[in-house]
Amino acid sequence: MINEFQLKIQKEIDQFISDLPHSPESLYAPVKYTMEMGGKRLRPLLVLMANDLFDGDPENALSPAAGIEVFHNFTLLHDDIMDNAPLRRNKKTVHEQWGKNIAILSGDAMFAQACKLMSKTNSINIKKILEVFHDTAIKVCEGQQEDMTFETSHNVTIEAYLNMISNKTAALLAGSLMIGSLCADISVDEANHLWTFGKNAGICFQLQDDLLDVYGNQEIFGKKQGGDIIANKKTFLLLKTLELSNPQQKEYLRKIFEKEKNNDVKLHKVIEVYDNLDIPAKTRNEISFYYDQALIELGKVNANEQKKELLKNFMSDLLVREA
Amino acid sequence: MINEFQLKIQKEIDQFISDLPHSPESLYAPVKYTMEMGGKRLRPLLVLMANDLFDGDPENALSPAAGIEVFHNFTLLHDDIMDNAPLRRNKKTVHEQWGKNIAILSGDAMFAQACKLMSKTNSINIKKILEVFHDTAIKVCEGQQEDMTFETSHNVTIEAYLNMISNKTAALLAGSLMIGSLCADISVDEANHLWTFGKNAGICFQLQDDLLDVYGNQEIFGKKQGGDIIANKKTFLLLKTLELSNPQQKEYLRKIFEKEKNNDVKLHKVIEVYDNLDIPAKTRNEISFYYDQALIELGKVNANEQKKELLKNFMSDLLVREA
Repeated sequence: MINEFQLKIQKEIDQFISDLPHSPESLYAPVKYTMEMGGKRLRPLLVLMANDLFDGDPENALSPAAGIEVFHNFTLLHDDIMDNAPLRRNKKTVHEQWGKNIAILSGDAMFAQACKLMSKTNSINIKKILEVFHDTAIKVCEGQQEDMTFETSHNVTIEAYLNMISNKTAALLAGSLMIGSLCADISVDEANHLWTFGKNAGICFQLQDDLLDVYGNQEIFGKKQGGDIIANKKTFLLLKTLELSNPQQKEYLRKIFEKEKNNDVKLHKVIEVYDNLDIPAKTRNEISFYYDQALIELGKVNANEQKKELLKNFMSDLLVREA
Repeated sequence: MINEFQLKIQKEIDQFISDLPHSPESLYAPVKYTMEMGGKRLRPLLVLMANDLFDGDPENALSPAAGIEVFHNFTLLHDDIMDNAPLRRNKKTVHEQWGKNIAILSGDAMFAQACKLMSKTNSINIKKILEVFHDTAIKVCEGQQEDMTFETSHNVTIEAYLNMISNKTAALLAGSLMIGSLCADISVDEANHLWTFGKNAGICFQLQDDLLDVYGNQEIFGKKQGGDIIANKKTFLLLKTLELSNPQQKEYLRKIFEKEKNNDVKLHKVIEVYDNLDIPAKTRNEISFYYDQALIELGKVNANEQKKELLKNFMSDLLVREA
């Protein structure tokens, strides 16, 4: 069934791409380029899976599913400008290829296109669907701003970090599940359980990403080990470490991050601190906590148990994919 | 009645500003700053006037009216980044005050907020209202891209120019009128007349702006005479001149625009060419053509004649305000 949904999504996105106007070319070529970069199309899949959980007609959720993916890609496009990223999926980013102005504007056009796709559903919940979508979009902007602010902040709390990843990462996963549910014409109360399930699962994914960046199998995970440490990124691991450190230990860490120019030495020293403080186990505990919260919420959903199991297994597989 | 609408709009926008979250501060301070810069609030006024033309309840159109204004201000914010503009309404632009990244992101958040306001109406036409809004947003992006492309293009036709201003300027005025009409629960066919009225009126406004930049009363118009000529901007006047010129005359103009460094001399020479070719009268003819088209369309609208007269006079006053 997942394969079937993936095919439907790809067809819908292909249709979106082929329906794009040809002119002005400088506006639409970057939209096409971005949407053709590929990606796992995870969020639209969650829309269709949630819709199916309540026996919704996939045709009624396909356009919103594509809308979520176009929106997601718009956020990546604008984030890449802000992060000055040269590459995305091994291809030049839009602002590298066409310049910042065209990147800003074609992103704006993608956001408008995403809204247009989102409102194409016959669900009786159309107003609520749009409300969730707009609130989600606002949360994603808030999360990106918080993330940028953290880069130069010296007193990020774990609470603030969890709030940031809830907005930047988890909100769109939660929103996808809620929008998919609402497309099946179910009540907002019922759909809210899926939202909370998605939010907790999203937090798990981000914490897992933080953990795998340092302790993951590099070959499977496909990223260089410790990239977050080398980039001085505030992750759950680092913030937990700072929380558990005394002033001397904090000073020791600050010096490594600010002064150690040899990346291998830097990695070695930071990981040593993490290991001494049992940070990997503490991170796994935190992941378990949010995972359990997610499952409790899924348990409250009144739907076919087999389909619930499918969604649970899908999310678990995502979580352990690179562990 | 216009005064009453203006008060309602200001109250709605004040409410929007005071409802903005306080955190993250870097995201919302620029939104507040932008919305507090003021401006004529012309577009929300058109929403309410169109709604009133069909005896709609203003309460049902107020949130979409505010949404149009937030959207308009979002486009100005992002345009200012692209144009590298230091000032807007005599205040520092957002990217000058907070940097480009915050300007991009707070603009994105404003777009999401605008969408949220737009969907708050009890009109039976909610889906059509959103469709018009999203299509308008897309047109505005297209117009901005066309405008940027024209900057470096040497063969802009009058047809392409009229298409650009239809998208960049007229579409939002037309969209405001159509959305206001739809909020009054009238049919799409009826609302379409208002859209076409607004589009033609919007083209008039832009052509009038082009004319007044060179031939306007500087003190009333409030801009330096000939700013468009000094900035080598492609306006209707210049494009009409190029259309009517033989190769020698084109070459003469090209040299003035590319080589003349003394602005007073440049202005004098270009205006001499405009005058010789009777460009002001030809521009006024073009304005009259679109003005007549607008009135023909307004004539087709089935509504109270007095209210139609009010809308007509309002638009005419805008058009002659600085002539």
